[in-house]
Amino acid sequence: MGTTAPSCEPLGRHNMLIIANGLLAGTAISSSGRLSIGGKSPLTGGIKESNAGGLTATRMARNGLRCIIIEGLSSEKSLKLLLVEPSTACLLPADDLAGLGVYETARILCGRFPQSAITCIGPSGELHLSAAGIATIDKDGTPSRFSGRGGLGAVMGAKNIKAIIIKGKGTITPADPQALAKTTRAINRSINDAPTTKSYKNFGTAAMVEVINELNGLPIRNFSRGKDERASYISGDNLRDSIIKRGGAGRTAHSCMPGCLISCSNIYADQNGSTLVSPLEYETIGLLGSNLDIWNLDDIARLNHLCNDVGVDTIETGAALGVMMEAGFIPFGDFNAAADAIEEISKNTLLGRLIGSGAQTAGKVLGVKNVPTVKGQAMPAYDPRAVKGMGVTYATSAMGADHTAGPSARAQVDHHNSAGQAALSKKMQKLVGIFDSTGLCLFTVGGVAAHKQLLLDAINALHGWNYDLDWLDKLCEQMLQDERDFNELAGITNSHHRLPEAFTERKLPGIDTTFDVSEAELRSVFE
Amino acid sequence: MGTTAPSCEPLGRHNMLIIANGLLAGTAISSSGRLSIGGKSPLTGGIKESNAGGLTATRMARNGLRCIIIEGLSSEKSLKLLLVEPSTACLLPADDLAGLGVYETARILCGRFPQSAITCIGPSGELHLSAAGIATIDKDGTPSRFSGRGGLGAVMGAKNIKAIIIKGKGTITPADPQALAKTTRAINRSINDAPTTKSYKNFGTAAMVEVINELNGLPIRNFSRGKDERASYISGDNLRDSIIKRGGAGRTAHSCMPGCLISCSNIYADQNGSTLVSPLEYETIGLLGSNLDIWNLDDIARLNHLCNDVGVDTIETGAALGVMMEAGFIPFGDFNAAADAIEEISKNTLLGRLIGSGAQTAGKVLGVKNVPTVKGQAMPAYDPRAVKGMGVTYATSAMGADHTAGPSARAQVDHHNSAGQAALSKKMQKLVGIFDSTGLCLFTVGGVAAHKQLLLDAINALHGWNYDLDWLDKLCEQMLQDERDFNELAGITNSHHRLPEAFTERKLPGIDTTFDVSEAELRSVFE
Repeated sequence: MGTTAPSCEPLGRHNMLIIANGLLAGTAISSSGRLSIGGKSPLTGGIKESNAGGLTATRMARNGLRCIIIEGLSSEKSLKLLLVEPSTACLLPADDLAGLGVYETARILCGRFPQSAITCIGPSGELHLSAAGIATIDKDGTPSRFSGRGGLGAVMGAKNIKAIIIKGKGTITPADPQALAKTTRAINRSINDAPTTKSYKNFGTAAMVEVINELNGLPIRNFSRGKDERASYISGDNLRDSIIKRGGAGRTAHSCMPGCLISCSNIYADQNGSTLVSPLEYETIGLLGSNLDIWNLDDIARLNHLCNDVGVDTIETGAALGVMMEAGFIPFGDFNAAADAIEEISKNTLLGRLIGSGAQTAGKVLGVKNVPTVKGQAMPAYDPRAVKGMGVTYATSAMGADHTAGPSARAQVDHHNSAGQAALSKKMQKLVGIFDSTGLCLFTVGGVAAHKQLLLDAINALHGWNYDLDWLDKLCEQMLQDERDFNELAGITNSHHRLPEAFTERKLPGIDTTFDVSEAELRSVFE
Repeated sequence: MGTTAPSCEPLGRHNMLIIANGLLAGTAISSSGRLSIGGKSPLTGGIKESNAGGLTATRMARNGLRCIIIEGLSSEKSLKLLLVEPSTACLLPADDLAGLGVYETARILCGRFPQSAITCIGPSGELHLSAAGIATIDKDGTPSRFSGRGGLGAVMGAKNIKAIIIKGKGTITPADPQALAKTTRAINRSINDAPTTKSYKNFGTAAMVEVINELNGLPIRNFSRGKDERASYISGDNLRDSIIKRGGAGRTAHSCMPGCLISCSNIYADQNGSTLVSPLEYETIGLLGSNLDIWNLDDIARLNHLCNDVGVDTIETGAALGVMMEAGFIPFGDFNAAADAIEEISKNTLLGRLIGSGAQTAGKVLGVKNVPTVKGQAMPAYDPRAVKGMGVTYATSAMGADHTAGPSARAQVDHHNSAGQAALSKKMQKLVGIFDSTGLCLFTVGGVAAHKQLLLDAINALHGWNYDLDWLDKLCEQMLQDERDFNELAGITNSHHRLPEAFTERKLPGIDTTFDVSEAELRSVFE
């Protein structure tokens, strides 16, 4: 096993695709089955870690697997399945799945490999498009848990792997089962009782629509405005009401992995009760909805489903469509044109390839001045002029614009005021490191952040270790430093740790402010 | 007057467009009227100096102008002319020229401002495309002297300037006219007597076709091969023979500026004696010809004319078309498809915008693995695996892949052997600095390089200075260092000083070698 050379080309033979779980994967701790996929990003040119829920991480752990590394390039052009069994792994032909969407791929593979966990790419990954993500099935077999950011689906596609199948349910053997069981109960109680859990269960992430709109930070018409009274049409309240009223296949409080107490997910059904998409989440509502001047949850759900099926990140794709709308290639607010454009991706047309190449490239080709990207990656649904801590995370994270790298939006601070935002982002970036390392979903933060010793106790009990909190802290600090070091060698330096002039020089209407966190403050994140 | 912030966005208000002449501009020294246009490049994201012949540099000098700097952005959307008169300058409306090709623009402006020098952009610059260059008229009023590289036409377009007109012929007033006259005679004699001058006069730069083909370094089918017996169809010999045989408007030994003794230019006419393009040069023959598997000078001349008219760099456009052909979007060897594709640029279609965005972006969007670019800019017509000193220049120059930044191809060395290539490139990069600073054409190197004291004497005589050769050396070293410092702050670091894996890992058929100059040797250029 080598290491990925930071200078390598993301789609070349020196890049690796690394599929890993967290330190607590496989346990009965709620939400501990986050899957972490990593490699050098074709979108940012830097290091990328993109994580998601679903079954794979837990199944890997229960089969004794911490990590799968895919190296090199195939000399053959044919697609393969990577079949991982408890004590062996092999490549199987998969040319029959070539060009198939993520939903059909998962349906076929669930039939062919029952009781298995499946992680796969759609046509966009096969086409090596920089917005391509990697999808993992949830507990219902729906392949909608996306490691969406950074284009890692293209890396998997470049390696000619259509899907990874983890066969066998397995079991874990904790070093100290009793201690683990006890800690697990305590952690789960804490997660269950957290007020944030209740909100996630009722409204999902869509609860943020009204919150961020109130802050003037909702992306509207390619991040040109941040607030609109139509936000109520796409709010968490409305989402929940629709699901309940329509019945049928629709579900609130849906969980993506067995044993999750938070259940932030949902199944969003149409007026006949047939599933439109699952889940429908805040980032997607922001980027494929308000950002495109589309204010109807059914339309947004349909765009979401199209993106999922072709295998592209909804954030990147929504931002790319926003840029194309600003350029006048597609009219703002035109659902049909947006849907047609997404459908071009799998047809491998010029338009499809451009959208699938992400917002930065679309902006460059179309000559759009206001492009919401940092380090080549599209911003999620928080305008950094209104939610300034997010802006600090976008600017300073090794991941490029990525809310999960250091989310500040739920903090009780004045988000419009630049003071203290660098410190807040820094704190959150470190906290994220802890949760990502354990494999716990970030949404357990509300229940667990104040009880880090419990996490450590669980890690020690599972692995038979005897580490202290200082070790966990240092682990995360080192991880952030390693990511920055990788990027430095990959050519991403201080000059890339900033937001575009569209955000530092163009005031956000309504709150009349730019992103005004100083370069010195941004640098303080690295101290 | 400020300075361009290295971190600025190339098409934003903080970039500057700098139009300058050299230290000997305006004198009667042969070939001393090179125009140097600079700014931050939208193609490379780094500093860019792109120079060309024609009238403007000389006319600026004779009107007492060393430099024109265009700062900021216009608050109006309308196009302007920048009219520079001996003692004043103003902006005039130019909306009537919007969308016009370079040839028609120059024709109209030559009529409106007789006896003036004109530098202008075509539709590609107005459309802010990264492959857009800036054209300057030659002594016949033909706007074919391109500051082509780096997309500076887009910077001019972003500043809403369609053309710069230098009115009035003016005159220079040397500090020591007698000394200047004497030195001028000596330099001109030396240029006139140089063997290289005779070759340039007879065959133009096209003499390189056979030379580089013999070295296996001609770009063929997107740099996948380096040698082909059909090279004779597009050679300097054949070019010259055709021009002479066809007669009419055709000319060999054509000069782009008054008083040039080298006359490397030509007017290439069709079978009826009507001009197809002027000049037809080696880089264009390589990139729009052999690189596209097009082996007919008439076809290449027609593609050249189309590129000139829309205002794009023929190197960047040829490389982009090669990438599109490798992707299968256009068939290799298909002249009509290539011509149609170039015509899409002024139509502002997706295809046109993609070609006009350059080879790197085209390759990214189309998922092409072998893309001949360095720091975002397309390679000129020397495969770096066969002409390794050029490869060192591509890798280490602040300009990205640019033969004029340190041309090694004419040196008497084993171009296939990596030994000594870094030292050769370093020497040439410095030499280029001297010639660019004086404003002398690089093609005077054969006559003047051994007589640098004469150049210095001329500079001192013209300006009333008393500098020594050490000053000139240090000036050029400092210039190279300043360029690297700018790039470092712009985010172009050591990790960008390399060639793509397509050249370091893929052997060139025929000579079975990669670009194998080591990273340590590449770094030695900076020592």
